[in-house]
Amino acid sequence: MYKLVLIRHGESTWNLENRFTGWTDVELTATGVEQARQAGRLLKEAGYEFDVAYTSVLKRAIHTLNHCLDTMDRDWLPVVKDWRLNERHYGGLQGLNKADMAKQYGDAQVLVWRRSYDTPPPALASDDPRGQRQDPRYAKLVPEQVPLTECLKDTVARVLPFWNEAIAPAIRSGQRIVLAAHGNSIRALVKYLDNIGDDDIVGVNIPNGIPLVYELDADLKPIRSYYLGDAEAAAKAAAAVANQGKA
Amino acid sequence: MYKLVLIRHGESTWNLENRFTGWTDVELTATGVEQARQAGRLLKEAGYEFDVAYTSVLKRAIHTLNHCLDTMDRDWLPVVKDWRLNERHYGGLQGLNKADMAKQYGDAQVLVWRRSYDTPPPALASDDPRGQRQDPRYAKLVPEQVPLTECLKDTVARVLPFWNEAIAPAIRSGQRIVLAAHGNSIRALVKYLDNIGDDDIVGVNIPNGIPLVYELDADLKPIRSYYLGDAEAAAKAAAAVANQGKA
Repeated sequence: MYKLVLIRHGESTWNLENRFTGWTDVELTATGVEQARQAGRLLKEAGYEFDVAYTSVLKRAIHTLNHCLDTMDRDWLPVVKDWRLNERHYGGLQGLNKADMAKQYGDAQVLVWRRSYDTPPPALASDDPRGQRQDPRYAKLVPEQVPLTECLKDTVARVLPFWNEAIAPAIRSGQRIVLAAHGNSIRALVKYLDNIGDDDIVGVNIPNGIPLVYELDADLKPIRSYYLGDAEAAAKAAAAVANQGKA
Repeated sequence: MYKLVLIRHGESTWNLENRFTGWTDVELTATGVEQARQAGRLLKEAGYEFDVAYTSVLKRAIHTLNHCLDTMDRDWLPVVKDWRLNERHYGGLQGLNKADMAKQYGDAQVLVWRRSYDTPPPALASDDPRGQRQDPRYAKLVPEQVPLTECLKDTVARVLPFWNEAIAPAIRSGQRIVLAAHGNSIRALVKYLDNIGDDDIVGVNIPNGIPLVYELDADLKPIRSYYLGDAEAAAKAAAAVANQGKA
């Protein structure tokens, strides 16, 4: 049996301000740092060991991983950073307040933008300063690989190849993996692993900074999955994520 | 012309306490964190960009790199951590105070232990709890690769293969490299690059947290090298390092 640990980054400044973030590279708050350290304490107390860590190229996930590994005294683990684990790109909504948008467009529209499987938010213009096509971290990608918006289906379409090419072979080779990423890149993985339908994934919310453990069989099919630590606190935190887009 | 940037980690808790550190995995002090951030500011202001970063498997170097890259807003750069960039192993001196040892054994003996090219300090016993043979970060090495003591010659003998196998080919392929490591792993590189004799390397001291820039020709021979920022401050800091082992 294999174990895989997924961690959504700790609270970011734009989580706190309830803004759509996407590929905007915002910092963790002090609370977010503490959540990351608490994740490390939970993993250490439960005796988890890892061989390699994966994260995105966004600092809220990278710092979450760094604080988590530091708390485990495992700063020395190899870390792979890949853009395919980035948050879903939020297009023209990036930077805007979720509750303001709900007041303006209604809760139902914001729920569609936040959780529709295949309807993306309005796209950014390719020269919008909020976009990432000039960002040096994506310089090796062709422009079309740098999204101007994404629905979850689009996120799945880039996360899954990375799963298949990098993560799944590493797990099969016996490497114990921790992955620090984002609400929607983790939802993409959860949808795939748990075989959740396009209509049902809307109800899945990932709380910040709580290790989500998957126990996988030899075919990498989930045997079970659970949050480490206080299950009730994890459920409450997931519910709070679900409510962020309401007026 | 290529550029290579070397940074010795910022002040560590055992630098502050003037203790022989070696492979002991101690933290940065608040001063050390600030030195790392200042290194990042200097590099950013001078317009340095990097493609890949190298560091050791010791947290004082890893954290120095992380703080430096974060200050440059380059958290997303790939980082390679390798034990061959570790500090020189200080054997049975690890944990002991440099000035105390100088009082007990004399300045000359401590200078030999600190700076002799080919005389190592007394070795640790293989089961000494200060040793690293049980440390999981070295689990993939054969025990004989995990030193019980090292002289600089021994450090050169593990740093240079890593230079030849990893760093030099990366530089030749056009990758711009920053390397955060340790006083003696950097001295090993400086000795090689500047072709410094075994007797003369004793006089070379690397200050904490100041970027050391090498400009290299097509054969990776140095054209010139210099510290970024205030040259006098760098010279003073290097002199202070030289004086650490005096009673």
